[in-house]
Amino acid sequence: MDRFSFNQATAKYWPLPDVVAGCAAAGVRHVGLWREPVAEYGLERSAALVRDAGLSVSSLCRGGFFGADDWLDDNRRAVDECAALGAPALVLVCGGLFGRPLPEARARVAAGLEALAPHALDAGVTLAVEPMHPMFCADRSVVTSLAGALALCEPFPPEAVGIALDTYHVWWDERVFELIAAHGDRVACFQLADWVVPLPADVLVGRGLPGTGHVDFAPFLEAVAAIGYRGPIEVEVFDAGLWSRPGEDVLRDTIAAYRSVVTEPART
Amino acid sequence: MDRFSFNQATAKYWPLPDVVAGCAAAGVRHVGLWREPVAEYGLERSAALVRDAGLSVSSLCRGGFFGADDWLDDNRRAVDECAALGAPALVLVCGGLFGRPLPEARARVAAGLEALAPHALDAGVTLAVEPMHPMFCADRSVVTSLAGALALCEPFPPEAVGIALDTYHVWWDERVFELIAAHGDRVACFQLADWVVPLPADVLVGRGLPGTGHVDFAPFLEAVAAIGYRGPIEVEVFDAGLWSRPGEDVLRDTIAAYRSVVTEPART
Repeated sequence: MDRFSFNQATAKYWPLPDVVAGCAAAGVRHVGLWREPVAEYGLERSAALVRDAGLSVSSLCRGGFFGADDWLDDNRRAVDECAALGAPALVLVCGGLFGRPLPEARARVAAGLEALAPHALDAGVTLAVEPMHPMFCADRSVVTSLAGALALCEPFPPEAVGIALDTYHVWWDERVFELIAAHGDRVACFQLADWVVPLPADVLVGRGLPGTGHVDFAPFLEAVAAIGYRGPIEVEVFDAGLWSRPGEDVLRDTIAAYRSVVTEPART
Repeated sequence: MDRFSFNQATAKYWPLPDVVAGCAAAGVRHVGLWREPVAEYGLERSAALVRDAGLSVSSLCRGGFFGADDWLDDNRRAVDECAALGAPALVLVCGGLFGRPLPEARARVAAGLEALAPHALDAGVTLAVEPMHPMFCADRSVVTSLAGALALCEPFPPEAVGIALDTYHVWWDERVFELIAAHGDRVACFQLADWVVPLPADVLVGRGLPGTGHVDFAPFLEAVAAIGYRGPIEVEVFDAGLWSRPGEDVLRDTIAAYRSVVTEPART
């Protein structure tokens, strides 16, 4: 289980110290963190907590929302928080239309990356553009496909701008495996979640643990292995049902779900 | 309003004779029909009803569901129904996974089109593959993008297999306008509906009349005009709110919505 990373959003209401202690006790080596709980606990204190527990931070979520008024300052702060936590990747949820025509909203994302990339490079943090499911295009992310995310990466070196690949968002896309194969150096973050139907009333919080839905995980794991990705594999599931349960139980079930779909090679 | 077509699904519970009478009285020239209400009223009787009212049938919905056991017989019948109604296009909702891996489910759609195309050609009916929004991939259509739909069309002549282009399903796609421009001869049916947020509990029935949501219709209208499409423009909106209202009111509001986004050139 060397590569498993527990994204804390999977147990949204579990306090950060408990997440870290629970992961350390369970032999988990990586955690994916979110800015709000980190800020609440304190940035330096969070960094020390994770470090002292022997965990690495696989990613921090989220930057982006380039249509918002304070996007530049907020994203610069997010990059700094990544650096303080030792997180190699800042996951970018790029934001919806913000009342603008779609091409204009997308152009703002490109301009935002250009403004932010030098600071990310200086900080040693990769901006991980997350292609999100097209059902979030209006209100959450105008980056709706892996191809669109890769086009945004194109002007920048891979250490500055890459992608956050989440199976939930891209599993439907005919081109996803050929694009991963052609742009392997762009995978900065890799997350697993499953697609379950019917969708719930709030589509944001109706994802499934790996193996409970319709995503075929094996081709994704093969595709990222084939391009030489050896980084952490996060499980990040937004599910109102999971969130209502004790964090320890969520972690246990998440580890079991991970093991049901991922076979890590024996350590050599 | 020569090109406006009222798809009867917009007023789902309005009886077919009332739909036809209402459209004729309002000066509407085209209707989009669905198989269930046509079967209920009687195929030949429906054909006569529409013909006697001076209306044309712009499309019949739906064939497809190639993963179902009786797909071949059912689709052949649907083609025959189109021919009887004088509908030039059979809209194909191609079906979800039916428990199969995604590539296999997609291969079945391709095989289904191959089996069905000769009969469609004989009947003078175009099979109109509808790329559906990716949020329906698991349970409704594994054809999730215009590019995917066009790839399915490729082996066949345009009079046999084309696409049903519905703004609701493809508005998020970066490639949609370049693909329309490159494959104009494939547009067999053109439908307008708007994307409204938040999505309702049942995502199938939460679409909006044109102009009430986030779709920018002008580029779509320009794109289909540029490729020489001169056929009907259907408004097809699945919305539980609309369905609860009297059919006359729905038709009136649908015509107003159409006029708010479509400017037809003056007749020459």
